[in-house]
Amino acid sequence: MNYIEPKVLKGFRDFLPSSEMIRLNLIEKIETSLRGFGFVPIDTPALEYAEILLGKGGGETEKQIYRFKDNGGRDIALRFDLTVPFARFSAQHYSEISFPFKRYHIGKVWRGENTQRGRYREFIQCDFDITGSDSPAADFEILLMIHHTLSKLGAGELIIKINHRGLFNRFLLHIGLYEKSAEILGTVDKISKIGIDKTRGALEEIAGEKNCDKIIDFIAEGNSFDETLDRITELSGGPSEESQRLKLIKHFMDDASISNFSLAPSITRGLDYYTGIVFETFLTELPEIGSICSGGRYDNLAGLYSKNRISGVGSSIGLDRMIAALESLGRLPEAFGFGLAAIACLKEENSGLYQSLADQFRGMGIPCEVFLEAVDFKQLSKQYILAEKKGLRFMLIPGESPLSDPLTLRDLASRKNYEGLSLEEAVKIITSFPLLP
Amino acid sequence: MNYIEPKVLKGFRDFLPSSEMIRLNLIEKIETSLRGFGFVPIDTPALEYAEILLGKGGGETEKQIYRFKDNGGRDIALRFDLTVPFARFSAQHYSEISFPFKRYHIGKVWRGENTQRGRYREFIQCDFDITGSDSPAADFEILLMIHHTLSKLGAGELIIKINHRGLFNRFLLHIGLYEKSAEILGTVDKISKIGIDKTRGALEEIAGEKNCDKIIDFIAEGNSFDETLDRITELSGGPSEESQRLKLIKHFMDDASISNFSLAPSITRGLDYYTGIVFETFLTELPEIGSICSGGRYDNLAGLYSKNRISGVGSSIGLDRMIAALESLGRLPEAFGFGLAAIACLKEENSGLYQSLADQFRGMGIPCEVFLEAVDFKQLSKQYILAEKKGLRFMLIPGESPLSDPLTLRDLASRKNYEGLSLEEAVKIITSFPLLP
Repeated sequence: MNYIEPKVLKGFRDFLPSSEMIRLNLIEKIETSLRGFGFVPIDTPALEYAEILLGKGGGETEKQIYRFKDNGGRDIALRFDLTVPFARFSAQHYSEISFPFKRYHIGKVWRGENTQRGRYREFIQCDFDITGSDSPAADFEILLMIHHTLSKLGAGELIIKINHRGLFNRFLLHIGLYEKSAEILGTVDKISKIGIDKTRGALEEIAGEKNCDKIIDFIAEGNSFDETLDRITELSGGPSEESQRLKLIKHFMDDASISNFSLAPSITRGLDYYTGIVFETFLTELPEIGSICSGGRYDNLAGLYSKNRISGVGSSIGLDRMIAALESLGRLPEAFGFGLAAIACLKEENSGLYQSLADQFRGMGIPCEVFLEAVDFKQLSKQYILAEKKGLRFMLIPGESPLSDPLTLRDLASRKNYEGLSLEEAVKIITSFPLLP
Repeated sequence: MNYIEPKVLKGFRDFLPSSEMIRLNLIEKIETSLRGFGFVPIDTPALEYAEILLGKGGGETEKQIYRFKDNGGRDIALRFDLTVPFARFSAQHYSEISFPFKRYHIGKVWRGENTQRGRYREFIQCDFDITGSDSPAADFEILLMIHHTLSKLGAGELIIKINHRGLFNRFLLHIGLYEKSAEILGTVDKISKIGIDKTRGALEEIAGEKNCDKIIDFIAEGNSFDETLDRITELSGGPSEESQRLKLIKHFMDDASISNFSLAPSITRGLDYYTGIVFETFLTELPEIGSICSGGRYDNLAGLYSKNRISGVGSSIGLDRMIAALESLGRLPEAFGFGLAAIACLKEENSGLYQSLADQFRGMGIPCEVFLEAVDFKQLSKQYILAEKKGLRFMLIPGESPLSDPLTLRDLASRKNYEGLSLEEAVKIITSFPLLP
């Protein structure tokens, strides 16, 4: 017989339970945090009209997108991010949404890009935005959520670097370079990748030597938020709406006792899309992996699809990068399971009674698996090993009459047995241990 | 300006928060239940090689599948179910899996089929299987999980109808019709759609009048599981491995005190794929919407991709059908939110302090949103209305100094205000109410 070779496409991945449990655990932590701030989920289709996803543009996106004709001859494509579908969604459902709208969206996106350097063609994006509010309190809330949410994922300390594109543009206007804004912001955006020397070279070409010095001066990061803010306010011609907004955000951060953020005028986020604050987030212990959570404020989300102006501020967590970081830092658990206990199988014909017993544990909030195939009592050790592999902490060994005889509880971590227990006593011991992460 | 019309493809859906929260809530209940039984999640790519998804076959599947060439010229397609990817996955990762393998997989699948009658081109499947075990205890566990999991979704009483394809085939062998098995099982499978008369007509054509009577006799449902089992055991030539398995499953069900299941010999599940027990699940109050959870036992999951024989038993929950059922039954909550409370915004410059206050509630396990834009105290009613729309239960109105002044707590359901509270007192009142579903 000829078998079809079982394999996945390049850039695509299977997730075995050991990695999928970790990924879901992170997603659940992110969702719990976002929901705690009152953010609500939406979903959109994976496939959309190509025209909607590509907009007027094309270019880089067009090369990377999975685009094809369906059986009805429609020109369709897989979404390559969650922002464009959100823009389309916001235009389409404008009258059904109450603003300010705090939404999150966690879903897969697809890009047929180069698969070098840990890039994948299918990955999960976690986006969250507040639309329909121009308030600096909305900018602040997004930054605070990034801080709180990422802090719960176990990758240690982080720093959020923020800037204001509007203030950068005001500076460029002030020195007579406003019309080269897109080019200059795009070049500055690459500074962490190409280094200061190459950036200087590129800027000199765009703006001339003298202006280049001014730009390099502008993007330097000072000793403190306030010092940097004073300097770039000065360099952009004095106090403005933009500098005032940064000041207010700093005030909110102080009131909320958040200190791990800085003002970094070199953060520009290449995309034309942003008009207000922009930000990137780095792990203190692993800055070299790049930003794990970026975003900014935009003043016209759905302009391609509707005359309704929808402003907002939003961010996206790089889940794969976060997992890679946790792995590098050695902070991914080795055996991790959602379960807590399993009931050993001594006699297969007792399966119904074992499940009844397990139901009683489940009813008391203890996930409890039933092992399906009987072994001799001597071979219980095999079931212990299997349970450990599954990341379980306890094994329950029932008696001859599973529902009435006393139980033995084995703590798989300490290899200690507790014998002759009632159900309640077993539950008491199990819940006396600290829970899994 | 010409706008691109914001719309989704036919058969595809946006989910606004009100529906997405309900969908996620059901998925979370399903996941919690499955995890309680020790099932672990996997994930596979949305896109696969077309050859892998289509296998040897083609036919109906080929017409419905989204298939295209990627930029590298590969012949690829979107998965149309989670079973075929699981078969490929099991063959590919055979040596990395510990058997018995209890896995679940919740994810989107795509079918370009007719969009009549509430069929969608993109929908979520929830599959769960136990592979690598031939034990009747595995069959039983899947049935028990269906019972427990669906019972938690709020659609009322249900009945699981089970049968054994092997026993049906033994009966056909006994009456000399084994070579027409596929045709006969396929015809019987349609009985609930086409009715008994048309089924009889079709069976007469396949098997002749006399044999048709025998088949009709075989598929009749008796007064009890035991009576039906005795009769079909007799009709298939006496006790067999298959009848013995059904007897054992009944014994397990009795031991676990599960009574809402029956033996229905007309359940065959059209697919050739199944070889052992097969089952469908119906809502007692809404049987006409069809099975909301079906599946069965197979003896060779990954035969197309590997020489390793992987047997198992599994099932799939029809999430869309379940939601439609809850809607029909009027059991979908009208305003449903993940949040519990919101802090009113009286002064925008206090946003940092409001968030600090909210953090204290979040830290005590109470999801707490901060409203972003200030209103006069007189207009607090607007914030109440917004909070109710969001499905929140409580509103917290801070004082001049949000972190030190007493709070007012408003119960939005009873419209009662509790004034002059400390944080601890407010938490105490909030947690004294029963939680949301």
